[in-house]
Amino acid sequence: MLPPSSVLSSLFSYIDEHKHQYIQNLREAVAIQSVSGNSENRKDVNKMIEWTSNRLKSLGCKVDLKHIGFDDKGLSLPDVIMASLGDDPNKRTVCIYGHIDVQPASLEDGWASPPFELTERDGKLYGRGATDDKGPVLCWFHALEAFQATGKIPVNVKFVLESMEECGSKGLEELLIAEKQFFDNVDYVCISDNYWLGTERPTLTYALRGICYFHVEVEGAALDLHSGIYGGTVQEAMEDLIYLLGNLSDKNGKIAITNFYDNVAPLTDDEYDLYKNILFDVDEYRNSIGCKKLLYNEDKVQILMHRWRHPCLSIHGIEGAFSEHGSKTVIPRKVIGKFSIRFVPNQSSKEIEKLVVSYLEQKFKERKSLNNLKVFMTGFGDLWSEDPFHPNYVAGSRATKHVYGVEPDLIRDGGTIPILLIIQKVTGKNILLLPVGQGDDGAHSQNEKVNVKNYIEGTKLLGAYLYEVSQID
Amino acid sequence: MLPPSSVLSSLFSYIDEHKHQYIQNLREAVAIQSVSGNSENRKDVNKMIEWTSNRLKSLGCKVDLKHIGFDDKGLSLPDVIMASLGDDPNKRTVCIYGHIDVQPASLEDGWASPPFELTERDGKLYGRGATDDKGPVLCWFHALEAFQATGKIPVNVKFVLESMEECGSKGLEELLIAEKQFFDNVDYVCISDNYWLGTERPTLTYALRGICYFHVEVEGAALDLHSGIYGGTVQEAMEDLIYLLGNLSDKNGKIAITNFYDNVAPLTDDEYDLYKNILFDVDEYRNSIGCKKLLYNEDKVQILMHRWRHPCLSIHGIEGAFSEHGSKTVIPRKVIGKFSIRFVPNQSSKEIEKLVVSYLEQKFKERKSLNNLKVFMTGFGDLWSEDPFHPNYVAGSRATKHVYGVEPDLIRDGGTIPILLIIQKVTGKNILLLPVGQGDDGAHSQNEKVNVKNYIEGTKLLGAYLYEVSQID
Repeated sequence: MLPPSSVLSSLFSYIDEHKHQYIQNLREAVAIQSVSGNSENRKDVNKMIEWTSNRLKSLGCKVDLKHIGFDDKGLSLPDVIMASLGDDPNKRTVCIYGHIDVQPASLEDGWASPPFELTERDGKLYGRGATDDKGPVLCWFHALEAFQATGKIPVNVKFVLESMEECGSKGLEELLIAEKQFFDNVDYVCISDNYWLGTERPTLTYALRGICYFHVEVEGAALDLHSGIYGGTVQEAMEDLIYLLGNLSDKNGKIAITNFYDNVAPLTDDEYDLYKNILFDVDEYRNSIGCKKLLYNEDKVQILMHRWRHPCLSIHGIEGAFSEHGSKTVIPRKVIGKFSIRFVPNQSSKEIEKLVVSYLEQKFKERKSLNNLKVFMTGFGDLWSEDPFHPNYVAGSRATKHVYGVEPDLIRDGGTIPILLIIQKVTGKNILLLPVGQGDDGAHSQNEKVNVKNYIEGTKLLGAYLYEVSQID
Repeated sequence: MLPPSSVLSSLFSYIDEHKHQYIQNLREAVAIQSVSGNSENRKDVNKMIEWTSNRLKSLGCKVDLKHIGFDDKGLSLPDVIMASLGDDPNKRTVCIYGHIDVQPASLEDGWASPPFELTERDGKLYGRGATDDKGPVLCWFHALEAFQATGKIPVNVKFVLESMEECGSKGLEELLIAEKQFFDNVDYVCISDNYWLGTERPTLTYALRGICYFHVEVEGAALDLHSGIYGGTVQEAMEDLIYLLGNLSDKNGKIAITNFYDNVAPLTDDEYDLYKNILFDVDEYRNSIGCKKLLYNEDKVQILMHRWRHPCLSIHGIEGAFSEHGSKTVIPRKVIGKFSIRFVPNQSSKEIEKLVVSYLEQKFKERKSLNNLKVFMTGFGDLWSEDPFHPNYVAGSRATKHVYGVEPDLIRDGGTIPILLIIQKVTGKNILLLPVGQGDDGAHSQNEKVNVKNYIEGTKLLGAYLYEVSQID
């Protein structure tokens, strides 16, 4: 364990002494039902914005509420909070992103206690938003306040706090581009809105896979047909589609698209070693999703690499076919298969689009179908990755050691977080994902929680991170 | 053309003279919105039953309204009309089935005139129920009334008229089994509730394919998974299902299930000739469904045989996968593929069930999937066929010649009509399907119609059929 400097020593003591106050603050925040997905909750979302602004103001922040337009129903979208604390040219400036809206929740969904009443049981704080993302946002506030009480804040801070994150961050990209000058003097970006891989070892996340989403449309007739009357005389669109989808990958998940793997960065031995040392419990992972058995003989390194480092393809469903309960004898006239590919360095969405379209068109041609085919990429999210040995990550690592006494695992994630790419674009700076919560916190699920330990040590972690940023040469 | 007997000559003249009255009667019937699928229309359905009962009574029928229980909402199901006219032991007794409920319809769906106002345009009577099945039911009534006005009815008649046909004939099977003695003295059964193959030549229908409906369920996990987080590490249920569905048939529609064709009755040369002579316009058929091209090089005999005489398999859809508009990155935990097989003599549903289940289980085993499979037949309808040279069919043929001056085409149909099997079971008698309307009448569609010519000549046809039945040795 690194010897904590006296700055951190007083900071950590102060934080420990204020534990009950911090939990009380989280209780207040959780009680505001800022569900962005229901327009009936818009007033609660606005209340949460006001509550948060007031806290920022009492820290001494300059707070701007930015209007970002209207939703489909003509209601104002919730304002984005852009706040600044300090403008000392001799200090580093850290940009912090977070969100204060939450997923819907109701007792009937299977919560053990009311989701909007923070409830402590067995050292865990249950409540919607406890870990995603009200808890971590409050950790930032408390860390700053603790610095003020025990000395001074070692960096300048810029906050972007939005309230539409759970609805695809509506309006945020346009706003941040328009407000680009807000980020002019930012040196580093830090986001605490994800989770440790498991429940024991802290982590830093330095990469995400990209995604390309495809629609494959086969059209056979001008109307849905009755299978008793027409079955046997027409080439059915559904059968063509099943054939195409069935040719996308083999039973081991290997993608069958011609030349697909050409640009995947080769694995190095060092990389293999990095994965070998990550703390990850395969049994816990398998049991948490209720599978009988995982792929790759459940080898830890293989499982982690296939989550983060290898591309994969998933077939999500079919639009236009019969999808309800029961039985219906329809021959659907037009069906649209939906699948997506998660891609990795050094692949690109443009290249994958080309490979997929030409492969499926070729397969369809070989089949000599009488029907019409359209293949198109409907969306994509670029991959994101940072150098995990960048000073911003070193600061995160050192902060982790101060608080938890261990090196964090450097991990990737298999999903895509579009907001990262936006922030990368407007700041051009290194972004650190520095999670407070654990892998079992249940963001988006029933009984979302943050452990008291993570909440309090997380406050120290974010404080120590700001301190370590100030120490970067 | 056969020389019409004087009985038929006066019958036909009387029918021609009353054309306007018959159209007026159909207008009244169409105006009653007896949509069985909407419980809000239950009072209209009951009004239609009352209207029909009154007409039957004015013909002199003994009318019984049979209660058949309650629907899911606790509403009484519409009564079934069972009516008898005549009990002369020296006459043949014909049982007639029909229905007086209709499919839903609204102007907004694309009707050129209000669906419940019978509207004549270009010799066609447009309105919901005009051809399915209020028109044909009225043809029976008018034929009987014309016999009474010009002489006497040559047979005894038993009517079964239901009002839940468009909802799967709820409650009918139980009723007819309980009322079995009603059919004791029935000699022949005739149903006018289908259509000519095309628009020119009258037809008699003597066979229907059977159907087996299957669900194939693959279960991979205890919950739906996010493809970014879990994609690449689990064997996806959807991919297993696509593989299984993709192995059911080849691109020409040939069913790939092992031993599937073993019991299909071999085609004979005579049979081939029968199909060769059927009037059927392949272009019209293709254009009516908006396909680019049909299977089997659009050869007429092949097309007809694949509609009626060969088995076929259709994949209808998938339950449990993403089926909505747009894009969603879910890995569905459990998916259920739905497909059905139309089968023909001498196959049986029992045999097909066995072949399908063992084939899919074998394929799944070969794939060595880590997931769970269940295959089950969820329903079946037996095939039905009659000897098309039975005296009942001869009577139908002779009636057609009296009215239209041509031999009807003897045809099959590719679908299944469960009510036929029920009536066959309770009567044990030959059933003739003797259509009034044409192949383009649009039953169940927008702008349903019956041609004035078919409606009036159809009245003669059904009258001539009753006469010909009375002449059977």
